[in-house]
Amino acid sequence: MGAGAMGEIKHLVTVKFKEGVVVEDIVKGMEKLVSEFDLVKSFEWGQDSEGPEMLTQGFTHSFSMTFDKKEDYAEFQSHPNHVEYSATFSAAIEKIVVLCFPSVCVKPSA
Amino acid sequence: MGAGAMGEIKHLVTVKFKEGVVVEDIVKGMEKLVSEFDLVKSFEWGQDSEGPEMLTQGFTHSFSMTFDKKEDYAEFQSHPNHVEYSATFSAAIEKIVVLCFPSVCVKPSA
Repeated sequence: MGAGAMGEIKHLVTVKFKEGVVVEDIVKGMEKLVSEFDLVKSFEWGQDSEGPEMLTQGFTHSFSMTFDKKEDYAEFQSHPNHVEYSATFSAAIEKIVVLCFPSVCVKPSA
Repeated sequence: MGAGAMGEIKHLVTVKFKEGVVVEDIVKGMEKLVSEFDLVKSFEWGQDSEGPEMLTQGFTHSFSMTFDKKEDYAEFQSHPNHVEYSATFSAAIEKIVVLCFPSVCVKPSA
């Protein structure tokens, strides 16, 4: 198997929300935000509710967005709508890891 | 926008490798492992080499695999080839976050 095809830019956010936060509202806000931008090529998320602390390190949610190119990601990041949403999001989280990278697709989705 | 379509099982591993580790070898091993299992529906990975420490928390690599269902993930996890590879992988990492969840696809890839 070769080095794989270099794909899109992936923006991956892993978080633990603060206690009492209504995650559903946060997700709805993100869905609304994403729906406003054609620049965001795909968006998926999930909640790990079973993983042992040893593996999850307390993180519970993952959000993944893809962009065609770095410039699109930068444009999205600096847009006022994103900046506004980020303030709400930041207030809701206890800890966060953000990675952004060109995705290497070794085995593509069918 | 609705709740999104409930998709496959996503196995998401975020790591920081120990200094001196040859990441290329680790990735090659993972590619080989994945190629042996039809159960693994997709596999992609990436390296964030630019993100500020404040965002990455020192994590550098992300690996993402998808499975059709939880049982497939469990079968992969417990297979001797995976167990063997895991020992190598574990020895190479300084820290890790592992999440596994049913992925909610809000905006599918084109």
